[in-house]
Amino acid sequence: MPTPKAASSRTPDATRRSERSRRAIYDAALALVAEVGYARTTVEGIASRAGVGKQTIYRWWPSKSAVLLDAYLDLTGQAGPEAQAGPEAQAGPEGGEERDEPAEPAGLPDTGDLAADLKAVLRATVDELDDPRFEAPTRALTAEGVIDPELGARFVERLLEPQLRLYVRRLAAARDAGLLRPDADLRVAVELLVGPLTHRWLMRTRPLTHAYADELVDHVLRGIAPR
Amino acid sequence: MPTPKAASSRTPDATRRSERSRRAIYDAALALVAEVGYARTTVEGIASRAGVGKQTIYRWWPSKSAVLLDAYLDLTGQAGPEAQAGPEAQAGPEGGEERDEPAEPAGLPDTGDLAADLKAVLRATVDELDDPRFEAPTRALTAEGVIDPELGARFVERLLEPQLRLYVRRLAAARDAGLLRPDADLRVAVELLVGPLTHRWLMRTRPLTHAYADELVDHVLRGIAPR
Repeated sequence: MPTPKAASSRTPDATRRSERSRRAIYDAALALVAEVGYARTTVEGIASRAGVGKQTIYRWWPSKSAVLLDAYLDLTGQAGPEAQAGPEAQAGPEGGEERDEPAEPAGLPDTGDLAADLKAVLRATVDELDDPRFEAPTRALTAEGVIDPELGARFVERLLEPQLRLYVRRLAAARDAGLLRPDADLRVAVELLVGPLTHRWLMRTRPLTHAYADELVDHVLRGIAPR
Repeated sequence: MPTPKAASSRTPDATRRSERSRRAIYDAALALVAEVGYARTTVEGIASRAGVGKQTIYRWWPSKSAVLLDAYLDLTGQAGPEAQAGPEAQAGPEGGEERDEPAEPAGLPDTGDLAADLKAVLRATVDELDDPRFEAPTRALTAEGVIDPELGARFVERLLEPQLRLYVRRLAAARDAGLLRPDADLRVAVELLVGPLTHRWLMRTRPLTHAYADELVDHVLRGIAPR
């Protein structure tokens, strides 16, 4: 993370250079972890591939896991508060004071048709997981999180839980409108949507398709429909 | 795997020695993969820890992944046909001809109370996943399967799919008895039981408890109850 000293010395040109470096670092980090896995990805390797000095990375991130997590959140369009505090957000008085607060992640669609909205979101997740750009880094980071509780916790806190909360919020709106059982456990319902999808993808038991996403939604909604 | 030549030269003493070696190799393999992870586990390391020669391992298994998979199946009590063909099953004419065919994995309990039976099985899975003897090797092998499609496929084929089929069979018996909707997709129902449980455990989002196992069963059965 940038120090206040570094931040206050920035000029607009330096900001643009920082942003280019950050982009190059993210691209290098994701490409490397996809190619060689988490364990063999190093800050040195990322720096060399990005064409920056190792110290440039350490100025902004404390560790390889921090760079990788920010790179991954950026890839998935979910850059959160920590990433927002990266180079471009610390562009000194010129840019810094105009910066908005980190935006809340956008909510799930709410067209009034709960099943259709959930299917649209789960289908988009299927498309993302089937996209080679996402697949390799997602697998590499997920696998590492499975064996490294500390990395796993950060991955879950910054990426997974915010997503799960969006689902819960969408289901709560439907429940408040009387479309679901008042006593339905919405958190468990969300895990019933996301868990099997992730499980099938991680274990590659069967193809991950839109039809499967739709089936999950139909099944789960039957379980929490009003009696 | 043993060659016919090796098998035919066995005596009862040699069989006992083989069984002791196999046990030592399994224990060493599981301890190592739990301690250092899949990538840094080697056949040399397993042999050294088990106090056997590397060639003893290569006589019975073609690769480290084959040893690890057999060791893990043995740990979970699911040693299948491949493992049955290991050293003790090839004990020459004396023992070999008396050997039963590899048993079909035992079915799920069927007391007539589907919900209770499923809860008993899922609770046992929770206990197993929470047991440190299982946790580390399960995490190590699962993580490797997530990034290595070939290993993942063998893990799924030999361990996961046989389990999922047992669930499907138990659900089919209930469906045939008129307790479930005739058009229920039982495979998807099973993934709805096992997926969220595995997901919660892998990602460590929330504690894995018997109460959660029960909630999953109740939810999923509501989704496939007769209309």
